[in-house]
Amino acid sequence: MTNSIPTDSVGLVTPQTHHFDKPLTLRSGKILPSYDLVVETYGKLNADKSNAILICHALSGDHHAAGFHSVDDQKPGWWDACIGPGKAVDTNLFHVVSLNNLGGCAGSTGPASINPKTSKYYGPDFPVVTVRDWVNSQARLMDRLEIPKWAAVVGGSLGGMQALRWAISYPERLNHAICIAAAPKLSAQNIAFNEVARHSITSDPNFHRGHYLEEGTYPKQGLMLARMVGHITYLSDNAMRSKFGKSVAEIEEEGNNFGRDLRTGKLSFGFNADFQVESYLHYQGERFSENFDANTYLLMTKALDYFDPSVDYEGDLSKAFENCSCKFMLMSFSTDWRFPPERSRELVNDLLKARKQLSYVEIEADAGHDAFLLPIPRYIGAFSTYLKKVYSEITGHAS
Amino acid sequence: MTNSIPTDSVGLVTPQTHHFDKPLTLRSGKILPSYDLVVETYGKLNADKSNAILICHALSGDHHAAGFHSVDDQKPGWWDACIGPGKAVDTNLFHVVSLNNLGGCAGSTGPASINPKTSKYYGPDFPVVTVRDWVNSQARLMDRLEIPKWAAVVGGSLGGMQALRWAISYPERLNHAICIAAAPKLSAQNIAFNEVARHSITSDPNFHRGHYLEEGTYPKQGLMLARMVGHITYLSDNAMRSKFGKSVAEIEEEGNNFGRDLRTGKLSFGFNADFQVESYLHYQGERFSENFDANTYLLMTKALDYFDPSVDYEGDLSKAFENCSCKFMLMSFSTDWRFPPERSRELVNDLLKARKQLSYVEIEADAGHDAFLLPIPRYIGAFSTYLKKVYSEITGHAS
Repeated sequence: MTNSIPTDSVGLVTPQTHHFDKPLTLRSGKILPSYDLVVETYGKLNADKSNAILICHALSGDHHAAGFHSVDDQKPGWWDACIGPGKAVDTNLFHVVSLNNLGGCAGSTGPASINPKTSKYYGPDFPVVTVRDWVNSQARLMDRLEIPKWAAVVGGSLGGMQALRWAISYPERLNHAICIAAAPKLSAQNIAFNEVARHSITSDPNFHRGHYLEEGTYPKQGLMLARMVGHITYLSDNAMRSKFGKSVAEIEEEGNNFGRDLRTGKLSFGFNADFQVESYLHYQGERFSENFDANTYLLMTKALDYFDPSVDYEGDLSKAFENCSCKFMLMSFSTDWRFPPERSRELVNDLLKARKQLSYVEIEADAGHDAFLLPIPRYIGAFSTYLKKVYSEITGHAS
Repeated sequence: MTNSIPTDSVGLVTPQTHHFDKPLTLRSGKILPSYDLVVETYGKLNADKSNAILICHALSGDHHAAGFHSVDDQKPGWWDACIGPGKAVDTNLFHVVSLNNLGGCAGSTGPASINPKTSKYYGPDFPVVTVRDWVNSQARLMDRLEIPKWAAVVGGSLGGMQALRWAISYPERLNHAICIAAAPKLSAQNIAFNEVARHSITSDPNFHRGHYLEEGTYPKQGLMLARMVGHITYLSDNAMRSKFGKSVAEIEEEGNNFGRDLRTGKLSFGFNADFQVESYLHYQGERFSENFDANTYLLMTKALDYFDPSVDYEGDLSKAFENCSCKFMLMSFSTDWRFPPERSRELVNDLLKARKQLSYVEIEADAGHDAFLLPIPRYIGAFSTYLKKVYSEITGHAS
């Protein structure tokens, strides 16, 4: 970290672990007898407990959404651009709750946890969890924290899907669902990319059918590849272009001139990284593979693939929304090709058909799907304005 | 195959191998002392040898572009939709030459060939070849076949890049360059996908630094993954959607309803293929991995990455085109996100800047990059009309 904590940061935060003994029946029919959820909170809960916001994380996120765990941290939480005093999710106004979802690998019970029944790692025996399972576990957390109703449930990508599920499953327990860069369900292409990621993990010889921790090994290459593929889909073609260079035509030696994308040395005429984008992907993949559990990655991608709230309503998503009583705020980003604006517009159409109150903002941004993590002024502006209105509603006066 | 050969097929064809003893100096500076090129031809060369068309293949293509090798063949050559009597590349009018490029694995000298110096497989010692090297080797083949000038050099994707290179390197030896679904150079995203493919191959423990043939093994999983990723990028999101189903909400059992993409069974709540697109990708990847050489795949992707004719002209592609004397025909497809229409328009702009004669057609098609392989009526129409004009030019009368 820099020497001092920025003034618009929530500062130093300490995660708390909540243990749950009541068995949780999952969508698969399997039962999780007990589990832990690790949680961070930022900002104070007000006297009538009306200012709580739940943050739901995406595929590789966790409870550490904002602030720092220690003054030595190199980076703040994953959504620090949006959460903090004076930021879009203003911790001067709101009490923010952020958890690591079930199946995660950052402290909540997941495949890398010890199964109390066997005293071994869960590994591949950890059950497949769905968005609905997560929302059910989050509702229990809400009870534990004695929060009667969320001012808002907020998430981007897979997190946005949780916000939608909240609106459908627990209509009386949230005032607003804020769903950013998400989709009503995955496209075949989305599922295909997820399957490539899974296949790269499960075909790594060090995967050992998911029992790699017991074997004292790790499917590093597989997880690295999975992340490399994922990373490409999070960025737009334009974002990559501006990050790794337009044409830089340099003369190397007579008769042997090649263009490159911000390459520093000569072309290798071999299979080393010739272009900066290659080294960048390696670095991203490698760093991720050292900090994330492969079985969790599999679970998260399956939760994405299985998400489709319309299935209880004969495929008609507008019917799924009919009983919702919260207001909706949706945002999408112009160059997001993982969950492009058209997917958010599908949601808008079904919400309108169900006669729900909604706001929708489409943000021009070059950054692709990852835009939802970035401090893009129009995005932060719209996000912030909306939550100020939410605050006025719950407190009865302007913020 | 079906019981009889279709009447619009070139019929049974037999590849021929041409051996070249004159050393070929490559762009890398390395020298290939001798090599074979395997070739197919369709249609008759006319008396003044003016009706020859060169077909250049893309990443995974080869010399077998049309017709059948035996009556038992299940499938014709890869571009049979476009080459044959009465088809766009009309073999009643043209003499068509199609080869497997150097570094390939279908008969021309490549990594899976025996290095005469060592009597072992070339493997990773086969030099990196570039589009320019291919075009140089194709010019030698042209001499061998005693063809003075191509009526047209034609290719899609990486094949289109060869057509451009022909126009620049050998301006006096072709009348038309037909460049379909290509780009002036790769984007960072293109390179990133190629690098994922390469990394998946080279990190497969059976790769043995490229010496897998000597080791009697094969990086099957790596090649399979590479193809799976590639395959996603060849199809549009829409094409996948229509191939693998829109929402099919079926009731399975009470309280356990899920939507799926044309899935037949129940959701597995495990890591088997739950969606048809997953099985489809597995099948494509598996089939490919059994029929293609992994080292060749590496070489082909590097040839793509290195392609950029502007580098000899200080990054100004229009200058690269200045000495071209052929006419150009470019086509692109609306949903191609690998080499989208914008990339073809870049080519158009630089050709116009260089004051070259050109035609450009943008085809509405749902099939993504793969559209160039398919018998899409507007595409075949434009392609066919153009080549009929080419035929009129060379023969001085209407076809």
